[in-house]
Parts: sequence; structure tokens; C-alpha cells
Amino acid sequence: MDAGEFHSVVGVFACQVHWGDCDPAGIIFYPTYFRWMDAACWSFMESAGYGAKRMRAEHRAMPLVSAECRFLAPAEHGDRCEVRSRIARFGGKSFVVAHQIVRSDGTPLAEGAETRVWGRYADGPGTPMRGETIPEAVKALFRAR
Amino acid sequence: MDAGEFHSVVGVFACQVHWGDCDPAGIIFYPTYFRWMDAACWSFMESAGYGAKRMRAEHRAMPLVSAECRFLAPAEHGDRCEVRSRIARFGGKSFVVAHQIVRSDGTPLAEGAETRVWGRYADGPGTPMRGETIPEAVKALFRAR
Amino acid sequence: MDAGEFHSVVGVFACQVHWGDCDPAGIIFYPTYFRWMDAACWSFMESAGYGAKRMRAEHRAMPLVSAECRFLAPAEHGDRCEVRSRIARFGGKSFVVAHQIVRSDGTPLAEGAETRVWGRYADGPGTPMRGETIPEAVKALFRAR
Amino acid sequence: MDAGEFHSVVGVFACQVHWGDCDPAGIIFYPTYFRWMDAACWSFMESAGYGAKRMRAEHRAMPLVSAECRFLAPAEHGDRCEVRSRIARFGGKSFVVAHQIVRSDGTPLAEGAETRVWGRYADGPGTPMRGETIPEAVKALFRAR
Repeated sequence: MDAGEFHSVVGVFACQVHWGDCDPAGIIFYPTYFRWMDAACWSFMESAGYGAKRMRAEHRAMPLVSAECRFLAPAEHGDRCEVRSRIARFGGKSFVVAHQIVRSDGTPLAEGAETRVWGRYADGPGTPMRGETIPEAVKALFRAR
Repeated sequence: MDAGEFHSVVGVFACQVHWGDCDPAGIIFYPTYFRWMDAACWSFMESAGYGAKRMRAEHRAMPLVSAECRFLAPAEHGDRCEVRSRIARFGGKSFVVAHQIVRSDGTPLAEGAETRVWGRYADGPGTPMRGETIPEAVKALFRAR
Repeated sequence: MDAGEFHSVVGVFACQVHWGDCDPAGIIFYPTYFRWMDAACWSFMESAGYGAKRMRAEHRAMPLVSAECRFLAPAEHGDRCEVRSRIARFGGKSFVVAHQIVRSDGTPLAEGAETRVWGRYADGPGTPMRGETIPEAVKALFRAR
Repeated sequence: MDAGEFHSVVGVFACQVHWGDCDPAGIIFYPTYFRWMDAACWSFMESAGYGAKRMRAEHRAMPLVSAECRFLAPAEHGDRCEVRSRIARFGGKSFVVAHQIVRSDGTPLAEGAETRVWGRYADGPGTPMRGETIPEAVKALFRAR
């Protein structure tokens, strides 16, 4: 079991605030940030060698235990952003991904985290999912040198 | 092959324009209508005896061939609407669902159609899907008396 | 300023898990819960006399400070749910809405909270927004008797 | 009035199929294509000199008259795509944007079109919108040389 924070590599996911991501107040509709964090998490996995195809082939998914976000500044239509993701913590079968969302001018827009289970379908998609102990080899993929 | 229009029962799907369904112009973001039409189609199937559970159990889905919509009047946050769906046409393996979207004050907001395949996964979700000839018994579920 | 929890009325927002709300794992895509919580918050406001029209007329919005959710059980396509919302706390210019998401069979699916500002556009939509002190008359609308 | 097709420049909008863009069948949920076409249209405008900031400053929007899409091949989670957009036709106050959606391996996934009005808010966002005659100078921005 890990004590303290994991020293993680950082993934970068580029995104942009689209017209339909905004609400009548003219700013980003907040669930968009969670859509971005989810996509950023998959992208982060891919950068470590666990792309969508491999995840599918191994019948893996990463169901959520919890998610949270603090909103620091409003984003507007057209803003180019990036989500910077890192592993904040590896537990036995779960892990925490911390995300920073930053606009291209350097303004921090939001800070969030997802707690996820390292999961596998018992018998392919659509069948029940179980958490599995995260192998050291998987953790090593995310360890910064 | 069908000649002319199918005399269909009509399904009704209630929905509402939520804050996040609108864009910075303060009106509904148009892909929302397609989300509604999809949900209305599933609801229409359910009303005819093909609910989500049965569709899953029979490994069915209804992949799209095409979709279209004309937008007649802008909808605003809070508007209560309904989607009125009917089968416009049954083909051999495909069918056309026509949707009218009407606000609670009677104003027509949009008119659309989806062309879908009556499909089945070869071997459960995630495996390839094939169209199947639509049985007369299924067509009968939607025939108005 | 409030000490402790606010004794709040409860709002109920009905919703359903649509096909497009689910992911390839066959369960709800988690940002859907945040979309629901946002819509439930607006519905809760409406039940207290602050509907979308009045909010617009008074140039109000409710920008987010933070949002969080714990996911307790997976929801599937077709599940009928409700979001039960209450004010957990009124601060000076901000307030916390607590949401419970429950399936029609009584299963708790998720528990979340949104911290929001009681805001007003300086000069109509599209112009900057400022927080305002929440009037006692507004708080009274949500107080359980 | 235009006779025949407009000889248009082509805009390219890069996108990717995210986990939450897919449905329980494991393929893209079709309204995602319309979200992409909308974002691609705004990106196309930006490439011609009409970015989000300028559109806002001039109180412009591009409300839809209609939208349609044919789906040619299923896209899966992780697929990298691009939307290739061109003006198919300029009318008096309206225009048609044709979109081709192509996967990175060259497979055409979908073909769609949006008919939009060249519109302006009477008095800023939230106020009614009127169509305006599209100036020759605007048309010239999209003419291929």
C-alpha cells in the first residue's frame, strides 16, 4: 500500500471549449469538465501503453468511485485548454487521477480528481465488472523517473 | 417492400429543455434534438413491448443509417416539450421513425426522422452487428387499428 | 451566517438513463449524473418560485464553485431514477445543494453536492457575473416547516 | 441566388471518439456527429477570419434551419477522425455547410450537412435574432482560388 503521494508522470490532453459546451450564461457548462477529465484519463492511459484497443482486448474498464472538481475561472467559447493528469495515489484496486485544467494563456480553470477502480468484465462487455489488484508493472508505467 | 406510408401508432416522449442543453445564444443546442429523438425512439419501442431489458436480452440494437431534422422555432431553457414518434415506413431490414417535437403551448419546434436497421449483435454487445429482416409480428406491434 | 445544516425542503427531479447516457461498459457515463444534478438544481429552484423565466428576467445565474459525486451502484439503460435535492447550507453569497440519486426500486445510485454562487449578470447575459448576498426571503423559500 | 455549387475552401477539424461518446453497442452515439459538425462549422468560420471572439463582438450567431447526416461506418472508442467542411451553397441569408467525417485510416464514417442562417442578435445575446443578407465580402472569404 502506498503511503503519501505517488510520483507520477504527467499526461497532457488538449481540448477546446465548443459552442455547445457553453450555457446561456456564455460560459462552459460544468459537466463538460468531467467529460474532459474522463477523456483525459483514457488519453493518459494510452500514453502509458494502455490505449482503447488494449483495454477492450483485455476486457478492462475503469469505473468511477467518485469525482470532484473545483471551478476557478470561467471558460468561454473558443478557449483552447489542456488537461494535465497525473496519478495522485495508487491503492490496492483503486487509483486517484488528479487533473488540472489550464487555458492556453496559462490561467488555471479547474482542478479535479477521479477515483477509479482497475476493473475487468467477468465475461466481456455487458457482463459484471470486478476490481483487480493493480499490478506493480502497471504502476511502474506511471512512475516518473 | 412497403408501398406508401405505414399507418402507425404514435409514441409520446416527454422532455424539457435544460440549462445545459442551451448554448450562448440562449436557445437549445441543436444536437439536443437528436438526443431526444434517440431517447424517444427507445421509449417508442418500449411502449410497443420492446423495452431496454428485452432489447439487451435479445442482443438487439437499432443502428442508424441516417438522421435529419428541420428546426422550426427556437426552444428556450425551461420549455416543456414532447416528441411524438411514429413509424413512417418499414423496409426489409430497416425502418424510418418520424418525430415531431412540440412545445407544451402547441408550438411545433422541430421535425425529424431517423432511418434505422433492425439489428442484432452476432455474439453479444461489442461484437459485430447484422441487420435482420423485420418480422411481421414486430411490424404488427406498431400498426394502428 | 448559518451554523450547521439548513433544514431544507426537498425537491424531486425525475429522470431516466437513456441509451446515449451510457458508455461501452453498458452503464451510465458518469458526467450524466452532473448533468442531472444541474437540471435538478434548476428544477428545485423552480419549485421554490425561481423558474427559468424569472431567473432570466432578473438576470440571475448560479455559477459553480465546486461539484462532487460518489457513485454507489451502476445504472443501466432504461433505469428510471429521481434526484432528491435539498439545501445543505446557505453561506453569505454561496449555497450548497446536496443531491441523492435513487433508482425507482429504491437503490441509491449516487450522492453528490454542488456549491454555487447566487449570481447576477452586471448587464444581461454575456456580461460579467457578480455574487450577491442571498436575501433572507430567498432562504425562507427553501426552509422546511 | 446562387446557381450550382459554391467552389469552397475546405476546413479541417480534428476530433476523436471518446469513451463517453459511445453507447452500449460500443460504437459512437450518433448525436456526437452533429456535435462535431457544429464545432467543425465554428472552426471553419475561424479559419476564414470569423473566430468566436469576433462573432461575439459582432453579436453574430448561426442558427440552424436543418441538419442531416448519413452514417457510413461505425466509429469506435479511440478512433481519430477529422471533419472536412466546405460551403456547399450560399443563399441570400442562409448557407449550407457540407461535412465529411473521415477516420485517420481514410475510412469515410459519415456525411452530413447543416443549413444555417447568417444571423445577428437585435440587441446582444439573449435578444431575438434576425437573418442578414450575407455580404459578398463574407462569401469571398470562403471562395477557393
